[in-house]
Amino acid sequence: MRFVIDDPTDPRLDDIRDLKHADKSGEGFVFGEGPLCVERLLASRFPVRCIIGFEAKLDTFLANHDVGDIPVYQVTRQTLGEVTGFDMHRGLVAAADRAEAWTVDEVLEGARTLAIMEGVGDHENIGSLFRNAAGMDVDGILLGSGAADPLYRRSVRVSMGHVLRLPWARFDGGFTTWQRGLEKLREQGFRLVSLTPHPDAVHIADALEGADKVALLVGAEGPGLTEHAMRATDVRARIPMAEGTDSLNVATSAAIAFYERQRSHRFREVDTA
Amino acid sequence: MRFVIDDPTDPRLDDIRDLKHADKSGEGFVFGEGPLCVERLLASRFPVRCIIGFEAKLDTFLANHDVGDIPVYQVTRQTLGEVTGFDMHRGLVAAADRAEAWTVDEVLEGARTLAIMEGVGDHENIGSLFRNAAGMDVDGILLGSGAADPLYRRSVRVSMGHVLRLPWARFDGGFTTWQRGLEKLREQGFRLVSLTPHPDAVHIADALEGADKVALLVGAEGPGLTEHAMRATDVRARIPMAEGTDSLNVATSAAIAFYERQRSHRFREVDTA
Repeated sequence: MRFVIDDPTDPRLDDIRDLKHADKSGEGFVFGEGPLCVERLLASRFPVRCIIGFEAKLDTFLANHDVGDIPVYQVTRQTLGEVTGFDMHRGLVAAADRAEAWTVDEVLEGARTLAIMEGVGDHENIGSLFRNAAGMDVDGILLGSGAADPLYRRSVRVSMGHVLRLPWARFDGGFTTWQRGLEKLREQGFRLVSLTPHPDAVHIADALEGADKVALLVGAEGPGLTEHAMRATDVRARIPMAEGTDSLNVATSAAIAFYERQRSHRFREVDTA
Repeated sequence: MRFVIDDPTDPRLDDIRDLKHADKSGEGFVFGEGPLCVERLLASRFPVRCIIGFEAKLDTFLANHDVGDIPVYQVTRQTLGEVTGFDMHRGLVAAADRAEAWTVDEVLEGARTLAIMEGVGDHENIGSLFRNAAGMDVDGILLGSGAADPLYRRSVRVSMGHVLRLPWARFDGGFTTWQRGLEKLREQGFRLVSLTPHPDAVHIADALEGADKVALLVGAEGPGLTEHAMRATDVRARIPMAEGTDSLNVATSAAIAFYERQRSHRFREVDTA
């Protein structure tokens, strides 16, 4: 059902009210912005509450997507701006309820490549990391303590919506402690690889070689992984850096490690073909 | 010489006045923000005009760096905020004049690995690309038409100051046309490699294998390289992407290609050792 709404105070627009200042994803909502993220939100496990957009954007989107009985609210750019508190030039947004997150067991199910974030607190880095993981066949992501919320609005956007489709779960709390969690992964056959810029670490290509299952640990930009976490892993791996340069951004480092992982598969398959 | 300035209208602070709204890098200035970028600005070819910061930040910085006769202005957080128009929490900034850019010949001098940006217009992507290039032993960067200004304030910051030290030049205009420029690189022994997500392209590892000198072309996020540019190169290379995913961010793709380039060196050296 599509409704035209002219009044910015209309309560049907409350889901996105003052979106600029109140990140309502903290209140149990998840937002998809732009056609790609709205599409991924519709395909996700998160129940979509409503879709809001400009006339032309809705025309295009609805011509290509069956949204069932989800209410659709058509607004002008000015109305949307007044409701959200900023000029939402993409002109298309959907709000969804947070469904139950994936469980750790669901994330592990059939997985051969995992990424584990120890303390990545930056929403943009989390989003980028999901985008890179999805792009390079990582099967799931586990979040340790200190990792920020992947469903934060900015993370969803930067991830290109992949936080809505790539299975992920919190790795502490409900499941077990961090260290016991890693032990469980090892029992399931995962090689645990810490990513660190430390020059004594082994080259990432050597660290990944021949592994059937890999769990790659990354830490926050700046401090990196804690010594505590690295001790619990099988190998410390580095991406060689040019002299006089710093480490790479955490999502970029992870992307390179994911690439190397995918590459080792490819060449193994070629070799045995 | 270090001066304490309390008056936000003091003309000695004009270099950074209203920095939030007017990106003065367009007026012939280059800015370094934070200790790392100020250090790199001091070590660069850009003549530093002044260093401005909070008392404690200056104490630390000046204890570790000889700034010669560059004037140093000590201000409070409040004064700095009033002058620049935003809360500059890093508390340390330096302004420099733009020196003459590197020439194309300077960039090519001794280079074995180059990156060429065709139309990367986003300042954050440019900055990230420089950071990644510097971190993985790329020797220089050439900018085609449409590439944004690497000395823009945001680009400097995101690059971690590497736009101030990694040689780069505009590849069109003064030098020669784009296509003739590529031809000149080829004559100098560079293998010209286009980076594209197109599935018909060859794996980046195959595209780089055995090359002595490589020039890697990347295009803007979204459209990517133009067909025109790709036709002028020797090989089209791709980073394999998982099904149902989009291409990676341009700086991330480039980072992976730089890594693969560095990797092929390493393993060649190991093989021949």
